[in-house]
Amino acid sequence: MFLSKRVLNTQASPIRKLVPYAEMAKKAGKKVYHLNIGQPDMEPPKAFFEGIKRYTPNVIYYSHSAGLYELREAFSMHYKSKGINFDPEDLVITTGGSEAVIFAMACVADPEDEIMVIEPFYANYRGFAEMLNIRLCPIKADPRDGYSIPSWDELEKGYNKKVKAIIFSNPSNPTGTVYSYEELKRIVDFAKEKNIFVISDEVYSGIIFDGKKHISIMNFEDQDRFIFLDSISKEYNTCGARIGVLGTKNKCFLEEVMKFAQSRLCPPLIEQCGTLGLLYDLDKDYTNKLIIEYQNRRDVAYNEIKNIEGAIFQKPSGAFYMSIELPIDDSEEFVKWTLTEFDIDGETVMVAPLTGFYATPGAGKKEIRIAYVLNSEELKKACNILKEAVYAYNYVYSKEK
Amino acid sequence: MFLSKRVLNTQASPIRKLVPYAEMAKKAGKKVYHLNIGQPDMEPPKAFFEGIKRYTPNVIYYSHSAGLYELREAFSMHYKSKGINFDPEDLVITTGGSEAVIFAMACVADPEDEIMVIEPFYANYRGFAEMLNIRLCPIKADPRDGYSIPSWDELEKGYNKKVKAIIFSNPSNPTGTVYSYEELKRIVDFAKEKNIFVISDEVYSGIIFDGKKHISIMNFEDQDRFIFLDSISKEYNTCGARIGVLGTKNKCFLEEVMKFAQSRLCPPLIEQCGTLGLLYDLDKDYTNKLIIEYQNRRDVAYNEIKNIEGAIFQKPSGAFYMSIELPIDDSEEFVKWTLTEFDIDGETVMVAPLTGFYATPGAGKKEIRIAYVLNSEELKKACNILKEAVYAYNYVYSKEK
Repeated sequence: MFLSKRVLNTQASPIRKLVPYAEMAKKAGKKVYHLNIGQPDMEPPKAFFEGIKRYTPNVIYYSHSAGLYELREAFSMHYKSKGINFDPEDLVITTGGSEAVIFAMACVADPEDEIMVIEPFYANYRGFAEMLNIRLCPIKADPRDGYSIPSWDELEKGYNKKVKAIIFSNPSNPTGTVYSYEELKRIVDFAKEKNIFVISDEVYSGIIFDGKKHISIMNFEDQDRFIFLDSISKEYNTCGARIGVLGTKNKCFLEEVMKFAQSRLCPPLIEQCGTLGLLYDLDKDYTNKLIIEYQNRRDVAYNEIKNIEGAIFQKPSGAFYMSIELPIDDSEEFVKWTLTEFDIDGETVMVAPLTGFYATPGAGKKEIRIAYVLNSEELKKACNILKEAVYAYNYVYSKEK
Repeated sequence: MFLSKRVLNTQASPIRKLVPYAEMAKKAGKKVYHLNIGQPDMEPPKAFFEGIKRYTPNVIYYSHSAGLYELREAFSMHYKSKGINFDPEDLVITTGGSEAVIFAMACVADPEDEIMVIEPFYANYRGFAEMLNIRLCPIKADPRDGYSIPSWDELEKGYNKKVKAIIFSNPSNPTGTVYSYEELKRIVDFAKEKNIFVISDEVYSGIIFDGKKHISIMNFEDQDRFIFLDSISKEYNTCGARIGVLGTKNKCFLEEVMKFAQSRLCPPLIEQCGTLGLLYDLDKDYTNKLIIEYQNRRDVAYNEIKNIEGAIFQKPSGAFYMSIELPIDDSEEFVKWTLTEFDIDGETVMVAPLTGFYATPGAGKKEIRIAYVLNSEELKKACNILKEAVYAYNYVYSKEK
């Protein structure tokens, strides 16, 4: 009676495996500022709850496997208003962005096939690929370069014949980088030359700073090649609702992915109704306030982390993450240390080591991710503790070792 | 740019692919009685909606990946009251029973490994296995024998060294058969001899007729070998809520399956809150009424179908399905024909051909499944139309061919 190799080989969540250390810190009476997880701290728009009240039927039936038609219509209108030309029939509502990634991967790659990924990448891509026995083929982005899309040469160097698709998130989790037209064009051209799919995870597209505009993969030509992924989790602070979207203009792909969608029957009905409310009564003020809030926090974090001597990073333009190369030798050890050995007046900070966001062995050992999901005051304190922790780790703890 | 073999090889939903014919029938002005899909027609207990109101937090956060701890506690108490000894820590809340099946399969089998299955079986097992590149190894149950668990010899004959687990639903979808202690013991003993896992899908365990008692796999010894699957969908008429449960006493399995659970973050939060309400305020009256209603319907359907000359079936004891061997040559053709060519005073019936519930090529061509999810009056009409359809198909249509 043996467990599958696929599950034994699956990486444990790089963030969650450090949770016991945070629990130890709390038991020891320390206050822990959590910058380690992308769990938003704000309430969703009221229209979400109104939608649940208004549209939830008395009989909790299976919806269409692609989601309620009205909901796909509402998303279609929403996307069209943003210059993305999806008809309701081009969309599949999924159980969170997670399921959209799983479906996309399973439709483009067989076991032992590979999917290119710009690394550091959303850590759970790895878990999904491992469940499906797909290999990730990583192309490294550079913190010195603001984690932008690597050059054509680097893409070419990383490519091999087993690659069936390229996946990335834009804005990027974990780096907060928002890709330019030129960067995206490079991916589109590269995918065309290699005849592979482009899986564009645009879950954070609603959170862009400094007045910049998000460029969707769907704004490019060669649309049959693109699989668009979205979710209401981040822009509307509804991450526990598990409502995502997979969109494509590729009719073959859509017909085939529906087989997987039908197997699992439907996405959760009540949250679909909430999302209907959200989209029917879209509150632009809510999103504007959200962006301003995150932009302020980004500035707070940026200004504090600038003070860390030796930190290498650039100001990110979207999402609510920042990846930073620190003058440390082992980010995982560093995080454990901040939780177990370090505090300032009984307070410490938890960040995410970036090792789990890389597929290249050994990569990310000097890098961490912070999620700015605390209010500005707490965030400032937390970043300051981080600064002191780096100093203490290098100049006190390391010398003791 | 090619789609994966796994998706191209995945069977389209055997029920849903006939939906266009039902739509044609409706466009032609016919009334279609749907006996083809397990979509309950009743309202859930009020406590489900109360739970949503009472327990949904203002911030829609990610729950624990194994589900809200309070919910696992509530399920634990619920199971203990039914003689199933699960602690909260033994349980993972999943997105419907579907996700529980996917997780269980992915944890026990690698690509090209096999999972034994008593056929006819829940059709979507096949879709899940295909997504995960696992082969199903079918052992045929016999309608003449009430679709009971095949003999040891037959299990032995079907087994091969690549088999890692055996899966079945009890009560069975699509047959409604409730397995006896001896039948289950045979599976348990067989699994022990072969050292394979037992995946017991008990989604219909709350719907058992004639005062019989459901026997859970967890009532047997050798508990490390068992993966228990459940869902609130059928017993509480909440199939659109997508709340399922995976339970096991196998600590290794649990630790490993959590990697997949963590990758997809969490099951839907609002339906978890509804389920909390459901379990905190469990309405035994509701379940009793539900059982009486389905038992009545079962009797109505049984008494009508008895009148179909040449029909081979036994009275099922659970769930809300019945599988029947009919004197027809091709069940899929028959279903199409009932929708396109046949009606009685403008009314016809849609049943599910059983071919899609078999992995053995060609099996099920004479069998159909009905789901008794209509009220007794409509059900009686529908079964009578079915009887007339079988007659007309054999004595009118076939002679014309």
